Amino acid sequence: MISPRRNTARIQVDRFTGDASRSLKDAVAVEEPLEIRLAIRGDEHRVAVTMRTPGEDFELAAGFLFSEGLVRDRADVVDLRYCTNVDPQEYNVVTVQLRDGARFDPADLSRNFYTTSSCGVCGKASLEAIEIQGCTRLDLGGSTVSSDVIRGLPDALRGEQRVFERTGGLHAAGLSDAGGEIRVLREDVGRHNAVDKVVGERFLAGALPLDSTILTVSGRTSFEIMQKALTAGIATVVAVGAPSSLAVDVAREFGMTLVGFAKPDGFNVYAGGERVAP
Amino acid sequence: MISPRRNTARIQVDRFTGDASRSLKDAVAVEEPLEIRLAIRGDEHRVAVTMRTPGEDFELAAGFLFSEGLVRDRADVVDLRYCTNVDPQEYNVVTVQLRDGARFDPADLSRNFYTTSSCGVCGKASLEAIEIQGCTRLDLGGSTVSSDVIRGLPDALRGEQRVFERTGGLHAAGLSDAGGEIRVLREDVGRHNAVDKVVGERFLAGALPLDSTILTVSGRTSFEIMQKALTAGIATVVAVGAPSSLAVDVAREFGMTLVGFAKPDGFNVYAGGERVAP
Repeated sequence: MISPRRNTARIQVDRFTGDASRSLKDAVAVEEPLEIRLAIRGDEHRVAVTMRTPGEDFELAAGFLFSEGLVRDRADVVDLRYCTNVDPQEYNVVTVQLRDGARFDPADLSRNFYTTSSCGVCGKASLEAIEIQGCTRLDLGGSTVSSDVIRGLPDALRGEQRVFERTGGLHAAGLSDAGGEIRVLREDVGRHNAVDKVVGERFLAGALPLDSTILTVSGRTSFEIMQKALTAGIATVVAVGAPSSLAVDVAREFGMTLVGFAKPDGFNVYAGGERVAP
Repeated sequence: MISPRRNTARIQVDRFTGDASRSLKDAVAVEEPLEIRLAIRGDEHRVAVTMRTPGEDFELAAGFLFSEGLVRDRADVVDLRYCTNVDPQEYNVVTVQLRDGARFDPADLSRNFYTTSSCGVCGKASLEAIEIQGCTRLDLGGSTVSSDVIRGLPDALRGEQRVFERTGGLHAAGLSDAGGEIRVLREDVGRHNAVDKVVGERFLAGALPLDSTILTVSGRTSFEIMQKALTAGIATVVAVGAPSSLAVDVAREFGMTLVGFAKPDGFNVYAGGERVAP
């Protein structure tokens, strides 16, 4: 077993180049399961197990629960802790303790998006589900994003990606202000986890909603990434990769700006182009 | 809403280059939810909802159920069908009908990896869970993989990726023989789905296990990708991207060969290097 609890591990690999091969040490990104639990009024509920890169586990747990609509207010979270009962899993179980008066219905844990929708399982139902969770169209009050800032974000993100440098194996999510400086950056083997971590960091700091913030992601954008951004109030998402059709639908329906294929020499705007200042 | 039921959609985007912007039509990869159901002995069980690119939905459903250990034999599957009761979701619900005598326990649907493990939630438990599902170390009988073939696989995969060409937005998984020719290729916005589709195609063709087959993936390798490959009996996984620590653990524990960063001029071997012939 590769040793857990760190975000990278050094292992022996065989490097083949041309007709030759040699053995060398290489770094890989650590992947380990994390179980997220929610404790309230004397009960501890098992919410989910996610495969993640260890590090910022409390932020990941808080961000995940917030994105899922299970926890809404910072004041409801009174404690975050690792499970200390059983040794081998000590750092792979996080319990988020809510105050007894917090709004929480255990039935929410088993309810999925499509059981609350009028039209069953389809793209439109996915959008409806976001509304049911309480999200409304963002009001951006005439704010703009500079195209110079957008062009600089991919390099700014990569420049801060410390684990990627060593492993080539991690997704990143970064939060920046309108000037384009990355303020919070998190990395993970799972791209949803990287977004949960940055949102969780801001949630725990009591800094939500993030309406004047730009979220930059190292990969592609999907429905889930956009849903997480919207829930945190983020109006602008800049991706190095391509969007899916449903990512574009979420952005257009909820008044977000969605950029794809961001590079130093240009980018595509899939929604909210009127907010991008040339 | 972008029109569903196709694997790409054409939408209007703003392309910014330098100080100029222009409006043009661009293609994006379609993402839509698919609900997978399992019907047996008069009951229909809702198993999962996955966000996927439409196309090869029956293969995706079959491959997913096989990878999860819920369906093991081709002969158990007597029918695959779309839900035709409700119009808007017609093509987003697939039911896999098993014969009444098939081995199936509804309790398996709610059981997760970590409830059956001795050590709780950790990397070791993840590996144990694979064994509990019935996987054993692969016996490769001295077979080798040529390094020339490995170097050629990324271009072979990309050459067959029709939807990626148009959207830049899809993961791909391909199955090839020892000679390196891609025989089955599937694309999806979700990388797990792409693997489920190629495995599902072979499962429905009655061609499992795939022990003399190479699986090539366009992205990174994680625990889940390796677990799916192992369940299908695939001994060799070649990835264009990096592996996670747990992907390497699965490969080493179960006797698989795992290649990462595959390019025409070289690659890294993280496990099973003795099977790679220079």
